[in-house]
Amino acid sequence: MSVVKITVLGAGSWGTTYAAVIADAGFPVTLWARRPEVAEEINSTHTNERYLGERVLPEGLSATDDDIAAVTDADVIVLAVPAQTLRENLTRWKPHLKRGVKLVSLMKGIEVDTGKRMSEVIAEVAEVAESQIAVVSGPNLAREIADRQPTATVVASSDITTAEAVAEISANAYFRPYTNTDVVGVEIGGAIKNIIALSVGIADGQKLGDNSKASIITRGLAETSRLAAAMGAEAHTLSGLAGLGDLVATCASPLSRNRTFGRHLGEGMSLEDVIAHTSQTAEGVKSAPAVLALGRRNGVDLPITEAVCAVLAGKLQVDELAGLLLSRKRKHEGPPA
Amino acid sequence: MSVVKITVLGAGSWGTTYAAVIADAGFPVTLWARRPEVAEEINSTHTNERYLGERVLPEGLSATDDDIAAVTDADVIVLAVPAQTLRENLTRWKPHLKRGVKLVSLMKGIEVDTGKRMSEVIAEVAEVAESQIAVVSGPNLAREIADRQPTATVVASSDITTAEAVAEISANAYFRPYTNTDVVGVEIGGAIKNIIALSVGIADGQKLGDNSKASIITRGLAETSRLAAAMGAEAHTLSGLAGLGDLVATCASPLSRNRTFGRHLGEGMSLEDVIAHTSQTAEGVKSAPAVLALGRRNGVDLPITEAVCAVLAGKLQVDELAGLLLSRKRKHEGPPA
Repeated sequence: MSVVKITVLGAGSWGTTYAAVIADAGFPVTLWARRPEVAEEINSTHTNERYLGERVLPEGLSATDDDIAAVTDADVIVLAVPAQTLRENLTRWKPHLKRGVKLVSLMKGIEVDTGKRMSEVIAEVAEVAESQIAVVSGPNLAREIADRQPTATVVASSDITTAEAVAEISANAYFRPYTNTDVVGVEIGGAIKNIIALSVGIADGQKLGDNSKASIITRGLAETSRLAAAMGAEAHTLSGLAGLGDLVATCASPLSRNRTFGRHLGEGMSLEDVIAHTSQTAEGVKSAPAVLALGRRNGVDLPITEAVCAVLAGKLQVDELAGLLLSRKRKHEGPPA
Repeated sequence: MSVVKITVLGAGSWGTTYAAVIADAGFPVTLWARRPEVAEEINSTHTNERYLGERVLPEGLSATDDDIAAVTDADVIVLAVPAQTLRENLTRWKPHLKRGVKLVSLMKGIEVDTGKRMSEVIAEVAEVAESQIAVVSGPNLAREIADRQPTATVVASSDITTAEAVAEISANAYFRPYTNTDVVGVEIGGAIKNIIALSVGIADGQKLGDNSKASIITRGLAETSRLAAAMGAEAHTLSGLAGLGDLVATCASPLSRNRTFGRHLGEGMSLEDVIAHTSQTAEGVKSAPAVLALGRRNGVDLPITEAVCAVLAGKLQVDELAGLLLSRKRKHEGPPA
């Protein structure tokens, strides 16, 4: 790829780490941080301590708190803001987008007010063609990647040349992107895994063992695959890195915010206390009702999502949830309904 | 089901636990232990300390060291002997089998000398119809079940009434069997997961993180599914409890023998030292070459199994394995080839 201006918007743990991945791939990159002191810290000490501790960021990564300057003339813009703030942020940035810009989503979630996937919100607000949009998802715990541990991911776009271009700017010795054209499958996998991780966390907090957690993961992937298929996704995407891979990494990791949130609930902490206790967003908490609504609209039963929503709404006790998930009436194991 | 004589042959951790499951389902059961002192311990103190520590076994479970008496007149015989000893054991028991007996396999592995699945060895040696044979597999870490933690499993038989009969004698408050008719899928899932667990253990010993391990699990399930499909299995079996569920539970658990075996290798211990250090069998070590041969015979590429075989044969260093598994040349993520 010829010289390009690449911008990452959002300096949380994944946005910062993905900017470092791009820099380590040999492409200079600008990272926008909402707070001036974070941009200042990144430029002066090459750290983002709040999210990545003492890890040293590469030289090719520079930060700014001026979002408009970062967006203007950028050829590739990577969006890493909280899912529920995307519409508002992108509305502000839209007038400054370069014609033909590629927009890349790192976000995992469903817009609560509309039930839309992140790439749908991008297409609608930025008024760009689907072929300009890519999504990145996989077993990608940010801190492990920031440690430069070997990791694979999926870059999906309806236009394979867009997927390949995004793969090229983020491929380096420790980060290996695979391209895919199934945007729906990748986004649904990423959105629901946060909800499944919440339920695995609850089971963990309830001191249930690996058999129970593996059963929840298995049924969780089954319900994710049913919804994704109903929305037009391909089965192999959900059994690949952006489905199964991401789900297993998230559910295994003590670093996962959603799993940790669930664990606190499972241990008996009240919803209010867990929210007060959590500094970073657990996206699954916000997206769960929107995903449940997506299921209803597509005629797909999502028992785990439904149970998590009931817990979050205070309508189901955490000690009832595990029993509910492990004691469904179905006796014959058949193909996904 | 009317009064039946039920026998479990093999008093290791899973055989003993499954016998306890049957007793807790309300069916008296006889457990055969090869060593008289184990049978004596079970009958006197209701424990099997070597495998299950201080866990107390139910009253309805009694033990014997007389295999012929245990086999004679039994209506249901559950086989829980080491996979590679099945043929020899069953040859001895065959003359004493009741006509119409149901034979249930708890064993996970491939017979090394013949490449046969356990149910194939049973049909051949016992000369019974396929419809008399069932296999049980799922996310079933024995010690968690012995603690009476809620768990689901799959009971598969080509004859659904056989599967249902076996499900009935093992269904209780904490153990929930789902029936299935895909014997091949269930057995291939059970055999390969031990090999995948070995490779996850090696990655663990090499201090790789959850992203890497999740990638290995994802690709491991993909190669298992490819082999199973080539052998006539159904895809949903592998994405269900006996495929994905069992794999995730095994790879998550510090209790897994295969994962522990791999971890020692990954930490740099020699193969001889790991074998000397391990009291229980790591079945994946024995089955790996037989599974690789199955792959060749069915024209299916099994990269993880192949890499594990190379490590076990001393032809590949453990630090080369992880790199090999995470750096395959494929760039586009597509459906299983």
